[in-house]
Amino acid sequence: MTAAPDLLKRLRTALPDGSILTDPDVTASYAHDMASFCEAGAPAVVVLPRTVEEVQHVMRTATELRVPVVPQGARTGLSGAANASDGCIVLSLVKMDRILEINPVDRIAVVEPGVINAVLSRAVGEQGLYYPPDPSSWEMCTIGGNIGTASGGLCCVKYGVTAEYVLGLDVVLADGRLLKTGRRTAKGVAGYDLTRLFVGSEGSLGIVVRAVLALKPQPPQQLVLAAEFASTAAACDAVCRIMEGGHVPSLLELMDRTTVRAVNDMAQMGLPETTEALLLAAFDTPDPAADLAAVGALCTAAGATEVVPAEDHAESELLLQARRLSLTALEAIKGSSMIDDVCVPRSQLGALLEGTARIAEKYSLTIGVCAHAGDGNTHPTVCFDAQDPDESRRARESFDEIMALGLELGGTITGEHGVGVLKKEWLAREIGPVGVELQRGIKQTFDPLGILNPGKLF
Amino acid sequence: MTAAPDLLKRLRTALPDGSILTDPDVTASYAHDMASFCEAGAPAVVVLPRTVEEVQHVMRTATELRVPVVPQGARTGLSGAANASDGCIVLSLVKMDRILEINPVDRIAVVEPGVINAVLSRAVGEQGLYYPPDPSSWEMCTIGGNIGTASGGLCCVKYGVTAEYVLGLDVVLADGRLLKTGRRTAKGVAGYDLTRLFVGSEGSLGIVVRAVLALKPQPPQQLVLAAEFASTAAACDAVCRIMEGGHVPSLLELMDRTTVRAVNDMAQMGLPETTEALLLAAFDTPDPAADLAAVGALCTAAGATEVVPAEDHAESELLLQARRLSLTALEAIKGSSMIDDVCVPRSQLGALLEGTARIAEKYSLTIGVCAHAGDGNTHPTVCFDAQDPDESRRARESFDEIMALGLELGGTITGEHGVGVLKKEWLAREIGPVGVELQRGIKQTFDPLGILNPGKLF
Ligand SMILES: Cc1cc2nc3c(=O)[nH]c(=O)nc-3n(C[C@H](O)[C@H](O)[C@H](O)COP(=O)(O)OP(=O)(O)OC[C@H]3O[C@@H](n4cnc5c(N)ncnc54)[C@H](O)[C@@H]3O)c2cc1C
Ligand SMILES: Cc1cc2nc3c(=O)[nH]c(=O)nc-3n(C[C@H](O)[C@H](O)[C@H](O)COP(=O)(O)OP(=O)(O)OC[C@H]3O[C@@H](n4cnc5c(N)ncnc54)[C@H](O)[C@@H]3O)c2cc1C
Repeated sequence: MTAAPDLLKRLRTALPDGSILTDPDVTASYAHDMASFCEAGAPAVVVLPRTVEEVQHVMRTATELRVPVVPQGARTGLSGAANASDGCIVLSLVKMDRILEINPVDRIAVVEPGVINAVLSRAVGEQGLYYPPDPSSWEMCTIGGNIGTASGGLCCVKYGVTAEYVLGLDVVLADGRLLKTGRRTAKGVAGYDLTRLFVGSEGSLGIVVRAVLALKPQPPQQLVLAAEFASTAAACDAVCRIMEGGHVPSLLELMDRTTVRAVNDMAQMGLPETTEALLLAAFDTPDPAADLAAVGALCTAAGATEVVPAEDHAESELLLQARRLSLTALEAIKGSSMIDDVCVPRSQLGALLEGTARIAEKYSLTIGVCAHAGDGNTHPTVCFDAQDPDESRRARESFDEIMALGLELGGTITGEHGVGVLKKEWLAREIGPVGVELQRGIKQTFDPLGILNPGKLF
Repeated sequence: MTAAPDLLKRLRTALPDGSILTDPDVTASYAHDMASFCEAGAPAVVVLPRTVEEVQHVMRTATELRVPVVPQGARTGLSGAANASDGCIVLSLVKMDRILEINPVDRIAVVEPGVINAVLSRAVGEQGLYYPPDPSSWEMCTIGGNIGTASGGLCCVKYGVTAEYVLGLDVVLADGRLLKTGRRTAKGVAGYDLTRLFVGSEGSLGIVVRAVLALKPQPPQQLVLAAEFASTAAACDAVCRIMEGGHVPSLLELMDRTTVRAVNDMAQMGLPETTEALLLAAFDTPDPAADLAAVGALCTAAGATEVVPAEDHAESELLLQARRLSLTALEAIKGSSMIDDVCVPRSQLGALLEGTARIAEKYSLTIGVCAHAGDGNTHPTVCFDAQDPDESRRARESFDEIMALGLELGGTITGEHGVGVLKKEWLAREIGPVGVELQRGIKQTFDPLGILNPGKLF
């Protein structure tokens, strides 16, 4: 799709040449994120602004010409939330990637949206500080994308999700006006919490151009334990015992047998392949070995066949790396995958995994599961051959059936990956007609012309 | 003000007799919360529902007859947010006070809005769990009120504010429909975060009738240290050093000399009266004595004249009690007080206190300060004689000047007490015209007739 000449002319009045891409081969490469089964249109133009004023110019132009705008970070999203729509302006924020401030007394960082998560983490780490949210994609994904999806990660069981670390935002609205929300302070309750409203709004309410993020002091390095189980049920039982026992692990992750094998196949990690479920628990406390011993005993009580604490930090890192590889490794099994993101109350984790196994059998599919088990947040990953129409259909159906099961168990269709285009109908099912009506009302307030990331969420 | 006969007749069709109060002497006692200088009207009727259906009936009736509704908890608020307007229905939720569920595996509690904060805290404590938000009014205030104001407390420096513990809500909307927001799960990102929008909305968007709250495991009992300083500047310097040093106190509070003396006068606490500022720090870590030693050394380095760790839990509790008495004791000095709630980046705490002292001098007033120092959240409390019109005027002016100073220092006009009627104009000043416009749009979406707690916030 080529852009209307008027659109390009108008954009160029306040944007340098290099920041506007129009070659269809190039713009096509910005069409979608990493989700399967999500429609994506052809962008008219891709814009890569470097300043707030440039973003304002884009939005003013888009409003005047009624052109849809799709904000993008690194496009690692897993719900199609960053997918282009036909004729849209893709507004990629990746060039706005400066860390503007790190303040150890106030424990905040001020950043532009294009900063890579891992880059920020390392920068604050150098000052003894810690930015907890750590999606497994952290070496690629941007803070703007993390805010757009309200993303989670491995640390959430102790440190919570992105939303809890966003104190204030600068947002360019649909009409180009600049809104400042929130604060630089530790607390603040002046009016409705607009900051939080933007977190997880998937680019549908405004363009985040600056964020004030809360930091924590860097905890001691975590030590990881691996526990092997002869069934996922036993592993889930261990998770319940650990949480009920009042422990506060810095990580509590589960990989089922399919996942373990996939990771070994991809990276020769030497994980124990005979086990049905591998549980990883970690502590970043002053005495992690003592905590791991207590948790190890609970695993044994729940039926663990083997409990192996990491010897040192290097071994711990290796186990984390294995966990972080899970989604990529599962995708490699059959070339394509649909990654679900159902979160249930952790007491229902066992029921969800049992049901998922039943669904895999019913549809004759391989569904590997890795999970942020301590949070009850699972990623059942349907592995399929996209060339095989029947298998693709079954993949899609099983994916939906897992969400239905999650809702039945008192859970949500998405713990951290968001709704995007992938789960639009499911959002309506989860939040109901009253919820949808109010959410549409909010959208209408912020974006009356509906030009911001249309076709997502609802 | 007496209610229109039609209103009473309609209310009575679905509410038991005892739940409707119409005696003007009685209804007048529901007119206002604990804030000074806030207009309050005369309610037409006070309703005390016991069920969700009764609340729905009230709201449907109010919508049909276009009668304003003012939700109330325990009316301990400090901004007039629960004040009646003329002819309104006061909807007091205090009879809906059941704890419906406490779940140690999922670490959640499900409660009705009228549950008293301390009652919940004790109930979960019995199961080894912890509900952190602890406003000093905790023995009186309700969870519904805490959600309405997004209240804070002493624990926030480590555990955060009420907002971080509200996972899901049942809300009766202005027209009587029931909305369910959020979740029972640890994580969830399905759509805009309506749950968070209600937290701190001061009863202006809907009536909270049920809440799912996150719990933590109960930490070890905290141990408190008291440090005396010859100036508030030195005490603030100590606060910065402690936070910059990467410590995570479970409490970091400041009382200035006026506050210390007021507390001694009221309760003979034996606090050190010669000191200019008393800093209380606490840790609930495995080895609190070691942490207190480290923090004590930082206090000494910042110029503390005396550093006294509590001997045991009883002594710690006594110090906390002294801190919790501060606002009440300051009010007693001259019979009336205006309690400000300015929060600044903690690096600006010294500047705020210095400026507050200057303002007190300029207006010849006694302004005592207690503060959640670790959060930069101060309560400069103007003590005045309400019978003295000139002093009252000066009190009001100094109060505003402190807010202006807070904004200048990059802070907010309210860290935890909210806007209510007290700070309406100041809210507009803080969030600006674009912010006000969007907030009004949200209000319009939820309450198109404007019957919910009118005259508050904007
Ligand atoms: C291998 C792999 C592992 C992953 N692991 C995790 C995980 O552990 N936890 C997790 O939560 N997710 C995970 N993800 C998903 C993904 O990485 C996250 O959703 C991430 O937050 C997306 O960031 P991004 O920069 O790629 O954003 P994009 O995908 O480009 O965009 C995401 C959304 O944010 C919007 N957006 C982006 N920037 C802005 C802005 N400046 N203003 C307004 N809106 C904006 C977009 O419109 C879109 O709706 C994983 C993905 C992969 C591929
Ligand atoms: C001595 C003293 C010490 C205090 N210390 C602190 C402190 O440390 N930290 C702090 O944050 N505050 C403190 N406060 C202020 C006050 O206690 C808090 O704001 C508290 O949250 C109010 O609770 P409440 O039940 O009294 O609510 P109310 O004052 O009755 O109502 C507060 C607001 O919530 C709304 N509301 C109440 N219930 C509902 C409901 N079910 N649905 C919708 N809206 C509702 C009301 O309309 C109103 O806008 C203190 C007050 C006093 C008197």
